[in-house]
Amino acid sequence: MRDVAILGVGQTRFGELWDRSFREIGIEAGFQALVDAKLSSGDLGALYLGNMASGSLIAQEHIAPLILDYAGLAGHHLGGIRIEGGGASGALALHEGWLAVASGAHDFVVVGGAEKLTDVPDTEANRVASGTADHEWEVVFGATLPALWAMIARRHMHDFGTTREQLARVAVHAHEMGSKNPNAHYRNKISLEAVLGATPVAEPLGMLDCAPFSDGAAAVVLGPLDRARKFTDTPVRLLASQVACDTMAVHHRREMTTLDSTVVAAKRAFAQARRAPADVRVAEIHDAYTISGLIALEDLGFVEKGESGRAFESGAFGPTGKLTVNTSGGLKAQGRPFGAVGVAQVVEIVRQLRGEAGDRQVGGAELGLAHDVGGTGATSVVHLMERVN
Amino acid sequence: MRDVAILGVGQTRFGELWDRSFREIGIEAGFQALVDAKLSSGDLGALYLGNMASGSLIAQEHIAPLILDYAGLAGHHLGGIRIEGGGASGALALHEGWLAVASGAHDFVVVGGAEKLTDVPDTEANRVASGTADHEWEVVFGATLPALWAMIARRHMHDFGTTREQLARVAVHAHEMGSKNPNAHYRNKISLEAVLGATPVAEPLGMLDCAPFSDGAAAVVLGPLDRARKFTDTPVRLLASQVACDTMAVHHRREMTTLDSTVVAAKRAFAQARRAPADVRVAEIHDAYTISGLIALEDLGFVEKGESGRAFESGAFGPTGKLTVNTSGGLKAQGRPFGAVGVAQVVEIVRQLRGEAGDRQVGGAELGLAHDVGGTGATSVVHLMERVN
Repeated sequence: MRDVAILGVGQTRFGELWDRSFREIGIEAGFQALVDAKLSSGDLGALYLGNMASGSLIAQEHIAPLILDYAGLAGHHLGGIRIEGGGASGALALHEGWLAVASGAHDFVVVGGAEKLTDVPDTEANRVASGTADHEWEVVFGATLPALWAMIARRHMHDFGTTREQLARVAVHAHEMGSKNPNAHYRNKISLEAVLGATPVAEPLGMLDCAPFSDGAAAVVLGPLDRARKFTDTPVRLLASQVACDTMAVHHRREMTTLDSTVVAAKRAFAQARRAPADVRVAEIHDAYTISGLIALEDLGFVEKGESGRAFESGAFGPTGKLTVNTSGGLKAQGRPFGAVGVAQVVEIVRQLRGEAGDRQVGGAELGLAHDVGGTGATSVVHLMERVN
Repeated sequence: MRDVAILGVGQTRFGELWDRSFREIGIEAGFQALVDAKLSSGDLGALYLGNMASGSLIAQEHIAPLILDYAGLAGHHLGGIRIEGGGASGALALHEGWLAVASGAHDFVVVGGAEKLTDVPDTEANRVASGTADHEWEVVFGATLPALWAMIARRHMHDFGTTREQLARVAVHAHEMGSKNPNAHYRNKISLEAVLGATPVAEPLGMLDCAPFSDGAAAVVLGPLDRARKFTDTPVRLLASQVACDTMAVHHRREMTTLDSTVVAAKRAFAQARRAPADVRVAEIHDAYTISGLIALEDLGFVEKGESGRAFESGAFGPTGKLTVNTSGGLKAQGRPFGAVGVAQVVEIVRQLRGEAGDRQVGGAELGLAHDVGGTGATSVVHLMERVN
């Protein structure tokens, strides 16, 4: 397989984009990425599009050709393929785009992620999002995603002494970083007291422990690394792309507080890249819920099992830490347009590695990681990216 | 890219499987394919699953890990990725599975297609299927898939003198072949008069010009060709896999009676395989509507533009023709579980190339083609397969 580089990135603002349609945001992100890559649309071979539930949310399936069509690219008769894996859809699309270029089937592809979640009532969006958990063994009994994550949080608190305040720190950090991201859904800073005092959703998780439903789209352009210098002075190499699955239902797992899908995907990714967790300077992790952010730090190998709450509280993963997580604001503050999340994470890592992250730039970013999760962890995807000097 | 072989195939019965769940049929097809390939599940790297609309139809997204889980494979932490492109979902999943093996990312993968369409009212299934056309420019104005195909049929009749009887021949042939297929949704033969006299759906198309909504699943196992002899005496080489897209809305196309997506995908596939249409002995083509079957013959290069109706009437594509199409019964008689169709087509071609197609076996099958379409042709996928002697 040949080496693959990320040549361009693009992203819309995340938020309640009621004046913009699914196809409009998809096209905006894609064109931004093409312009950034200095690539002509005639050079493209395919579009891989991550999306969770356009059928349920906007009555439209078959959306990869839709985006190509309204981008004016129908006449090129590109391949157009939609990928779905719940909240991991965008990262899975990147995995498939990587395969398409690494294999030599295509030289250049666009990988996009797009979701329109706020054109339906929140109750409907919640119902649809619950479709990423096990319908027959969890959802029909009333379990929603926040309820399932709340149970995981309770167990983590019980087993490891993780505190309510430690959970809340994840959200405070996310909003701190999101305040510096012009594309973020939420740009307001929040206090620890605000998180602790927010309306309960599923205890111990309150409103501010849970990422919002957002509209938004993101895109990257991939191409062969050996041609990357033609397009950019700061190519980013896609070092590793790994997918791993686990049981759909939380109660079927070895233990509630570990996502084996993440553990395995991360191990495979570090082996593929010949790197170790300690080499990572910047990471976008799945903080759809504050507890999922903490657990990710353990499952990815950044801290010992059970230590994530204390380590996070100590500032180990903040702007001055050895590893800074979720400089974008994460799912919590940048926003959570399901299918777009995994691609947006990679957009942020590329910006950090290029040194183009503005007020939220961290120093010395050479190696970055993106971690995307579907449902409560039945799918995890890990990507490693490196700045090429 | 390394050569890829199809090592095993499996398929459930197609029809109204009201006593069986989505996960049950998905698992049945997958295990059949694994057993046929003499492969242990521990050898697998990933599952690629084609499905159109599980979210809308069974309130379950994120279905690739679901199938892996209930197949007892969660502990292997395989990759699991769902692919969607309307009726072309299954063929697109095969395309991605091919990339995974051809690239060397995985040695062995399962490609499945599954759909549960009859657990909801027909009106709901129709609404969901219409989501594969252009929602904003076709569907909201009342256009359904049969209505759009009916307009294409009218134009073909006007431009080329295609007759109502010629259209009907496609359905008569499908049921003739389906009567010999134990997995077919419909195994009854039908007369020309029955098709002509059937209840109108969207004129000139009647009930018997339109494929049914079916439940069903199909699966194939892919692996490297150079290891295929370890598993089977009759390996089938996947010679070409090509995807092409076009506009979503029919009225935006160069002409109504040509699917440029099929024309381009077929040209690319024949070029990739270094073969010509005249070399093909057996083909599964997209006869979701009788008109789509006729047009496919032209777009794939099997007859001159406008000649498909007359050629079909002459028996050129029947059991004794130089090319026999839809020995499975096609979408019309074998059935139309959207996401499973593209995989089932390949299952049939493999059976023909192996000489295992029972009463419907054609003689001298060395090269086969599978043609799958999403919506009214915004996506087309063409696969070419060859018996390895």
